[in-house]
Amino acid sequence: MTGSNGHASIDAAVPQVGIIMGSDSDLPVMQEAATVLRELGIVFEMTIVSAHRTPRRLYRYAEDAVARGLRVIIAGAGGAAHLPGMAAAITPLPVIGVPVKTASLSGQDSLLSIVQMPAGVPVATVAINGARNAGILAAQILGASDAVVRERIMHFKQALEASVMAKVERMARGD
Amino acid sequence: MTGSNGHASIDAAVPQVGIIMGSDSDLPVMQEAATVLRELGIVFEMTIVSAHRTPRRLYRYAEDAVARGLRVIIAGAGGAAHLPGMAAAITPLPVIGVPVKTASLSGQDSLLSIVQMPAGVPVATVAINGARNAGILAAQILGASDAVVRERIMHFKQALEASVMAKVERMARGD
Amino acid sequence: MTGSNGHASIDAAVPQVGIIMGSDSDLPVMQEAATVLRELGIVFEMTIVSAHRTPRRLYRYAEDAVARGLRVIIAGAGGAAHLPGMAAAITPLPVIGVPVKTASLSGQDSLLSIVQMPAGVPVATVAINGARNAGILAAQILGASDAVVRERIMHFKQALEASVMAKVERMARGD
Amino acid sequence: MTGSNGHASIDAAVPQVGIIMGSDSDLPVMQEAATVLRELGIVFEMTIVSAHRTPRRLYRYAEDAVARGLRVIIAGAGGAAHLPGMAAAITPLPVIGVPVKTASLSGQDSLLSIVQMPAGVPVATVAINGARNAGILAAQILGASDAVVRERIMHFKQALEASVMAKVERMARGD
Amino acid sequence: MTGSNGHASIDAAVPQVGIIMGSDSDLPVMQEAATVLRELGIVFEMTIVSAHRTPRRLYRYAEDAVARGLRVIIAGAGGAAHLPGMAAAITPLPVIGVPVKTASLSGQDSLLSIVQMPAGVPVATVAINGARNAGILAAQILGASDAVVRERIMHFKQALEASVMAKVERMARGD
Amino acid sequence: MTGSNGHASIDAAVPQVGIIMGSDSDLPVMQEAATVLRELGIVFEMTIVSAHRTPRRLYRYAEDAVARGLRVIIAGAGGAAHLPGMAAAITPLPVIGVPVKTASLSGQDSLLSIVQMPAGVPVATVAINGARNAGILAAQILGASDAVVRERIMHFKQALEASVMAKVERMARGD
Amino acid sequence: MTGSNGHASIDAAVPQVGIIMGSDSDLPVMQEAATVLRELGIVFEMTIVSAHRTPRRLYRYAEDAVARGLRVIIAGAGGAAHLPGMAAAITPLPVIGVPVKTASLSGQDSLLSIVQMPAGVPVATVAINGARNAGILAAQILGASDAVVRERIMHFKQALEASVMAKVERMARGD
Amino acid sequence: MTGSNGHASIDAAVPQVGIIMGSDSDLPVMQEAATVLRELGIVFEMTIVSAHRTPRRLYRYAEDAVARGLRVIIAGAGGAAHLPGMAAAITPLPVIGVPVKTASLSGQDSLLSIVQMPAGVPVATVAINGARNAGILAAQILGASDAVVRERIMHFKQALEASVMAKVERMARGD
Repeated sequence: MTGSNGHASIDAAVPQVGIIMGSDSDLPVMQEAATVLRELGIVFEMTIVSAHRTPRRLYRYAEDAVARGLRVIIAGAGGAAHLPGMAAAITPLPVIGVPVKTASLSGQDSLLSIVQMPAGVPVATVAINGARNAGILAAQILGASDAVVRERIMHFKQALEASVMAKVERMARGD
Repeated sequence: MTGSNGHASIDAAVPQVGIIMGSDSDLPVMQEAATVLRELGIVFEMTIVSAHRTPRRLYRYAEDAVARGLRVIIAGAGGAAHLPGMAAAITPLPVIGVPVKTASLSGQDSLLSIVQMPAGVPVATVAINGARNAGILAAQILGASDAVVRERIMHFKQALEASVMAKVERMARGD
Repeated sequence: MTGSNGHASIDAAVPQVGIIMGSDSDLPVMQEAATVLRELGIVFEMTIVSAHRTPRRLYRYAEDAVARGLRVIIAGAGGAAHLPGMAAAITPLPVIGVPVKTASLSGQDSLLSIVQMPAGVPVATVAINGARNAGILAAQILGASDAVVRERIMHFKQALEASVMAKVERMARGD
Repeated sequence: MTGSNGHASIDAAVPQVGIIMGSDSDLPVMQEAATVLRELGIVFEMTIVSAHRTPRRLYRYAEDAVARGLRVIIAGAGGAAHLPGMAAAITPLPVIGVPVKTASLSGQDSLLSIVQMPAGVPVATVAINGARNAGILAAQILGASDAVVRERIMHFKQALEASVMAKVERMARGD
Repeated sequence: MTGSNGHASIDAAVPQVGIIMGSDSDLPVMQEAATVLRELGIVFEMTIVSAHRTPRRLYRYAEDAVARGLRVIIAGAGGAAHLPGMAAAITPLPVIGVPVKTASLSGQDSLLSIVQMPAGVPVATVAINGARNAGILAAQILGASDAVVRERIMHFKQALEASVMAKVERMARGD
Repeated sequence: MTGSNGHASIDAAVPQVGIIMGSDSDLPVMQEAATVLRELGIVFEMTIVSAHRTPRRLYRYAEDAVARGLRVIIAGAGGAAHLPGMAAAITPLPVIGVPVKTASLSGQDSLLSIVQMPAGVPVATVAINGARNAGILAAQILGASDAVVRERIMHFKQALEASVMAKVERMARGD
Repeated sequence: MTGSNGHASIDAAVPQVGIIMGSDSDLPVMQEAATVLRELGIVFEMTIVSAHRTPRRLYRYAEDAVARGLRVIIAGAGGAAHLPGMAAAITPLPVIGVPVKTASLSGQDSLLSIVQMPAGVPVATVAINGARNAGILAAQILGASDAVVRERIMHFKQALEASVMAKVERMARGD
Repeated sequence: MTGSNGHASIDAAVPQVGIIMGSDSDLPVMQEAATVLRELGIVFEMTIVSAHRTPRRLYRYAEDAVARGLRVIIAGAGGAAHLPGMAAAITPLPVIGVPVKTASLSGQDSLLSIVQMPAGVPVATVAINGARNAGILAAQILGASDAVVRERIMHFKQALEASVMAKVERMARGD
């Protein structure tokens, strides 16, 4: 599944962000990363890579990421969520971790498994189920070196503000 | 480092238990697994394998474990403790996880990262810093199919009971 | 209730794994251990043993386990979950503990009551409600000394991987 | 170790309260239960009974408690603290549980293991390391049916109040 | 509301156990204490006493409890659950605290507010929503000095065991 | 102990803020409330009032507070910290609660016991051991209706900012 | 949205309390602050101010609050709830924080983000979803210097007590 | 304080990473971010910006960051840690948050305050006290678009691996 900005992305666009998740049950959460990347015109790919059930696939994915042109990896997982940390162990790219909410512990397990990485191997962790923010953060990372993307993020922030102001008006009118 | 029962282990004894840990800072804790395996006459090996800093070494270790004759793996790690779960993802052998106590979260992060494995890939988790119990559990696993080892475990349990009874006596005498 | 591999288990098959639970309300969870043991062709038995309401029955069950031919015990319990630890106190066999999710504390109480055993008496703890993994772990324990069972576990892991790959394909096709 | 009120307890006094603990490392905490029972003139006994290392001794202790004349049991334990709950499973007497503070989890594990008992088998739980309160509660339980003991508890409460008032005075004087 | 054993309680029976709760929203939980006391033939009373909304009523209730013939108080409350501790501060009677489950924190707040009492003023705490056990504990407290009540508790425990054994049979028959 | 602004408070100054604490062991923490009130020129009084050991004194203190001229109460307590909530149950004045750090649970028990008050009876809770902030908040409450006090708070905030800027300079100079 | 006591508030009434919230999804919770302020005859205003999406609006709101005549600010927010603390950083007025319950962590994140303010900048924190108590506390703050408002709070407390007593009667009648 | 690679950074080098912290007490932790950035040859600046005590400085810092040439911000804070989130609210640059360990809650408050950001405004959160990883992550973010930096990160990862292998050797030799 390859996303584009929907407007003018060239055919042969190489994905810059790879979204991976431990299980297809994480898709409803991780989909939000894809949605916001599309809104921001960032080309991405999305697939399933399970640290525990397909460990060799995880290695290959993380090892080939740079050569395939990826610049950021977003990895979502729940419970003993090893996917983001193991990807970060292998690739030199920045890895964003999304702790997926779990049935028993509401994602507290996922959060600690992802964020508490040892010195040397960071994972950029967002909120529990915070896949939308993972997508925005990926865009910000690209925007750190790309004024066009940064400009889109600034517009995105202005739109956020405008949507709050619209609600302010509505509340003032007593709707 | 290869342990033996200290009495009569044959020279060429093949380790049956592999003790691995994420960092040499885990050694003071993990050493207790080695100690009790020695007490129980189980041949073991012990080394460092870091999931995050030596991911390829972790793969090789877990992939070769059966062929090298190991029958149980004990893996200790702290924080985002991925070592036990990743070893369990690769090897068909039973993997015992030891959550090592951490400075900030006292090992609650290690415990959840190790125990909350997804369906399909169990890790036999013991208490925080419970390396001694990991060693005993490894012996019990071997003893499930080996009456001699099981006999040693029964003696071990009797010795535990006797040591409590000695303290009962001391308290009764008012020492 | 005695399980078998469904294919070729001999009539007089002695159960190798004993599944016990504190209450019949734990059955929907613990059933998954039975299911996977059947898939893996391991003969087991399953019954209710309450540490708190039938303490003498617990003693007898744990004391007779070796003589009856059991090689692993799986014990599930919730809340102040004493069943796995008390079984482990009595039998020399490896005991696998399944923390059952609870209404108030989501199984955090069960998890700590089961995993935080004192030195000398381990319980091999799996995830909250992780009964399926308890069954797999029991098979791995038997497989530590039985190449046939280990082979089945390797096939089981390959099937896990294959089922993920099928989902990868589906996601790639955009189903 | 048999305590008395230090003043006028008769020689052949039968202990009314049994203090048990899982390990002699719990003694510094549990000693406070003994101290306050002595202050309140309640005859007690104190010994070690480990649920995990001396399970048969635990059964005998709890089974014989009524016949031996005990009327309340105080049980202290840490971690997977099964002693109070197992004693309560066996004896019809009221059992008071003292969660002992632990190195890793500060007694949160002990507290949940003791207090979260299933319907049918209560343990009267006090604060983490609250052995002094366990002693007072044992006296209150005896005092529920004994006006003399209840009178002592009322004096005890007045003394508590007086000691606070003395500190109030000191603070007012600016000491 | 005055309960009785339903069989032979004399008309003028004085309640021995007072059940109080902070709010009528606690009634569905606290009702279980009443039910089991009725099963055990203990005369009780039940009413609302709010520490925070009727503080003077709380004082009077706790101050008059001994004179009115009560021998045990059961107090249920949720959140910043001050009712059990304040009752215990005033009366010399044993007070049993029932932490009621809360919407936000599932009763973890209630549990800590009730159990973590300072030295000098114990509350006998039971599990979150453990009102049934509070009733049983109240009976055990009366039974500490009353062989008839203790006998009923022993029968109660036998009935518990029998009900488990019935379920064991059912599971064995595969119902 | 009656504080004043140290400069020009009139002799007969009536305390406007009452600082109470459950135990003299809370004094090192609660002293900081006194210190900042002195810095801000607010007249206060400070004493010990134990909800659990001097319940009647607590009632009187809270009942007389308005008549005695107090306008805010600051109450510090640890563990099952009932003092702030019980004071708030009785007085119509605003009550500020300071959760005091505890040995076992680091003040998490104190925090929940103080903040989780039921609808109808608020306690204005500050951080664990946040007595200095309790003093500032008391001043802000007085300042809500007193431009002179509010002016002092604005100067106080400017001083806070200036002290940070001094550290900024020092860090820039590489001290 | 400007509230009044509904009876006799003058036309040109200046709001004394400002209720702000991070998102319109917080309105169902925060509405309760408005409701109780209306019951108590306090004029207030209510609007949306997002610390994260409208940071400049937050600054202006907090900076202008004194000049606009506000005397207390109530700020509700969930998750990384920065609104109350940032308002308190800017205004000298007392700020009451309402931790809004969150989907993943039930408001534990909101509570800690709001209450654990550093020395110098207090936020008067109420219970999770405790907006009704925030409104009462705002009235108490105004009442600290206004005998009329304090009188209303005393009536409010009497009404609370009366409503409990009505339930006491109902329970006594067995309704 | 402006860092450089120590070897060949040009005089007029513009900082690419801004390290800010809420208090100089955070310096021992945050210093590690500076150290690793120096190791990786990334030019940075470091200063104090307190969200709560210097809110206007925070606004200016975050608003000017892009124009001043910064490409990543690292923000460390403890307790109600609002600095990273507020910086992220204002700047379009990626913001990395370092939860600083706290005295009472060990940084659990800091972690939740930083990571649980609402949709629209991500903070890239690292482990409690994980400032070294924050520095590495900042370099990875620059490396996402800069092959030279990425190369350095790959060498850095190889050095990590080599240092583990050296310890493996030492353990094998029994040092």
